[in-house]
Amino acid sequence: MRLTPLAASLPATVPFVGPEAQERALRRPFVARIGANESVFGPSPKAIAAMAAAASEVWMYADPELHDLKAALAAHHGVRPQNITVGEGIDGILGNLVRLLVGPGTPVVTSAGAYPTFNYHVAGFGGVLQTVPYRRDQEDPEALLLATRKAGAPLVYLANPDNPMGTWHSGRAISEMIGRLPGGAVLCLDEAYADFAPDDAIPPLDPAEPRVIRMRTFSKAHGMAGARIGYAIGHPELIAAFDRVRNHFGMNRMSVAGAIAALGDHAWLGHVREEVAAAKARIAEIAAANGLRTLLSATNFVAVDCGGDGRFATAVLDGLVRRGVFVRKPGVAPLDRCIRVSAGRPPDLDAFAAALPEALADANKSHS
Amino acid sequence: MRLTPLAASLPATVPFVGPEAQERALRRPFVARIGANESVFGPSPKAIAAMAAAASEVWMYADPELHDLKAALAAHHGVRPQNITVGEGIDGILGNLVRLLVGPGTPVVTSAGAYPTFNYHVAGFGGVLQTVPYRRDQEDPEALLLATRKAGAPLVYLANPDNPMGTWHSGRAISEMIGRLPGGAVLCLDEAYADFAPDDAIPPLDPAEPRVIRMRTFSKAHGMAGARIGYAIGHPELIAAFDRVRNHFGMNRMSVAGAIAALGDHAWLGHVREEVAAAKARIAEIAAANGLRTLLSATNFVAVDCGGDGRFATAVLDGLVRRGVFVRKPGVAPLDRCIRVSAGRPPDLDAFAAALPEALADANKSHS
Repeated sequence: MRLTPLAASLPATVPFVGPEAQERALRRPFVARIGANESVFGPSPKAIAAMAAAASEVWMYADPELHDLKAALAAHHGVRPQNITVGEGIDGILGNLVRLLVGPGTPVVTSAGAYPTFNYHVAGFGGVLQTVPYRRDQEDPEALLLATRKAGAPLVYLANPDNPMGTWHSGRAISEMIGRLPGGAVLCLDEAYADFAPDDAIPPLDPAEPRVIRMRTFSKAHGMAGARIGYAIGHPELIAAFDRVRNHFGMNRMSVAGAIAALGDHAWLGHVREEVAAAKARIAEIAAANGLRTLLSATNFVAVDCGGDGRFATAVLDGLVRRGVFVRKPGVAPLDRCIRVSAGRPPDLDAFAAALPEALADANKSHS
Repeated sequence: MRLTPLAASLPATVPFVGPEAQERALRRPFVARIGANESVFGPSPKAIAAMAAAASEVWMYADPELHDLKAALAAHHGVRPQNITVGEGIDGILGNLVRLLVGPGTPVVTSAGAYPTFNYHVAGFGGVLQTVPYRRDQEDPEALLLATRKAGAPLVYLANPDNPMGTWHSGRAISEMIGRLPGGAVLCLDEAYADFAPDDAIPPLDPAEPRVIRMRTFSKAHGMAGARIGYAIGHPELIAAFDRVRNHFGMNRMSVAGAIAALGDHAWLGHVREEVAAAKARIAEIAAANGLRTLLSATNFVAVDCGGDGRFATAVLDGLVRRGVFVRKPGVAPLDRCIRVSAGRPPDLDAFAAALPEALADANKSHS
C-alpha cells in the first residue's frame, strides 16, 4: 500500500480511549460510568419506543436528505431546512467541516485543552493548529479572535458552554465575537451542551450569518450518544457545501426516528435538566466534603479541582478508575489540575463519594 | 467562508437520489421498494430483538474499538481482529480508504458504470478516475490490471459479484488478478453481495495479503441497510491505518448489537437466500413474459435488458416509477440498456409484473 504523504504522517494515537477498553484492562465493568458526559438518565421513553419500532424497518436505508428530521429541527429552531445539516454526531460533522475549510498547511485556531477530536480532524486534513490558553478556566474569545486574525485562519473553534471545564460565556459575548471575526473566517461554535445552559448563554440564531456554524447534538441532554445524531445550523451556502463531501447514506434509520421523537418530548428534557442540576449539586457537595473546589458548570458535568498539579489529578483519576468509577480529565495545564465528573444517578454518585477519599489518600501518599 | 480549492471544485451532485425524495415528488409512497438492493425480507428476528433491546442503552457511546463485533467477525471469517475495520456501511469505509490512499492528482482505476459512490469519494479527495469498459456485462480484470499498471495507480476498484449488473467472476480469477497487481497497488474488492454468490465466486481469505482489502456489509443479505454497518478485511497494516482517520465514536450502539446477533443467525441467512433465489427466478419470468432478457445474477437483484438503448430503458424506468415501482438502472452505456430490479416479496413483484407491460408500452410509444 502507498499511503498519501499526509496519511503516512498521521499518528496512530486516538482522541479518547473508550471505557470499554478500560473495563477489559481492569477485567471488570465500571460501577459508575460518569466519564464521557453521557446522559445516564437515558433517552426519552418516546425516543426508545420510536427506535425499537424502527428496528424492524432497518432493512431500508434512511432518507439521504433527512427531510423529516431537518423539517422538525427547522421548526424547532425557527430556521429553514436549508440551514441544517445532519451527521454522525458532532464528531462526524466536525470532520466534514474541517475537510471543507482546511487543507495541508491551513492555520486553524482553538484553545489549548479544548476538544481533542476537533484537533484530530485538523491534523487529519493537514491543518496547522494554533492554540491560545484558557483564561480563568474559560475559553478566551479575545485571544481566539487575535490569533485568528494574525494567522489568517479560515476556522476557529470555541465550545460554549465549554468542555472540559463546564464554564460559559454570555450569548452577548459570543455574538460580539462573531461580529468581530475577520473576513472569511468561520467560528465553529460547539453547543453540544446548550440544552443545559442558562438561556442568556446562547446567542440568538441568525440563519443569514455566514461567520458561524453551530453544532448541536442528541448525544447529551437527549441521552442518545450511541445513536450518533448531531446537526449543524448555519448559512445555507456553508450548509450546502456539506453535501459535496458527506456520506449521504450514512445516517441510521432507527436513530433518525428516535431523534424526531426526542425532539418532541419537552417533558423528558425538563426531567433530565432537573436530574442533572441535582447531580451537579451533589458532585459539588462530595467535592467540598473532601476539601475540593468545583467550577460552576453550564453542562452535564462538573470540573473538580483536585488542588494540586496535573500529575496529582491524574493520580486521583487513576484511583477512581481502579475503584470502578469511570471519569476523565483535561489534558493540558493548568486545566489538568481538575477531573471531570459527569452527572450521575444517586448510585453512581454514591460510588464516586465512596471512592474519592480513598483516591485522594492514594494520590497524597504517592506525592508525599 | 473559504472552502479549500478542492472543496470549491467539487460538484453539488450526489451519487444517488433516495426513494423518499422521489416519493415526495410523486406525492405518494412507492407500492414496491425494489430499487436500492435492500433486503425487503428484513433483518433476522434475533437482530431486531437485539437492536430493540439496545435502544434503552443508547445513552452510551458504542465501544470505539468495536471489540466484541470485531471478535465475532474474526471468528466467523477465521481471521484476527487486527484484520478487520468496521465503519458506517461500505460507503463510509470506501471514503476512508480513498482518503488514506488518494490525494490531489492520484490516479485511481475502476470500470465505467461501476459503483458511483466510490467515484464520489475519489473525486472528493482530488483523485483522477481512470475507467475501463465492462466486457460482456462483466467487469474486466485484465483491463483493470493494465490500466492500473499504466497509470501507476495505488488503488483499483472491482465489485464481485458486480453491481449494477449482478455478474460475477470465479474466486480463482479474482485471486489471479490480485497476484498480478503491480507493486504497491491495492485492490478494493467490494463483496457487498458475497452472501448471495456461489461459493466458488469468493476467493479464500488471505489475511497476510497486502494487495487486497475486502468490503463486506450487513446492508444486503443481513437486511440492515439502515443500521449502517460495514466492515473491511485486509492486511493488519492497512487496517490499522484506518484508525488514523476514522470517526472513532462513529458507530451506532444498536446496530453493533444487531450485527452481532445477525452474524449468529445462520438460519435467517439461509431463509433470505432462498427467498432471494425465488424472487430472482420470478423477475426473470416476468421479464420473459414481456419479451425481455435478464442477466444471470449472483446478487439480490436482476439486471433486465430492456432491449433498446439507454434512453429507452430510462423511459421504462420512468414508467415503473410513475406506477409506484421503485427501481434503478445503470448510468453508462452499454450497461444502461438495463434496469436493475431488486429481489422483492410476492406483492412487490406482483406490482412490478403489473406495471412492466404498461411501462414498456409507454416507452415504445414515446420512441416510435
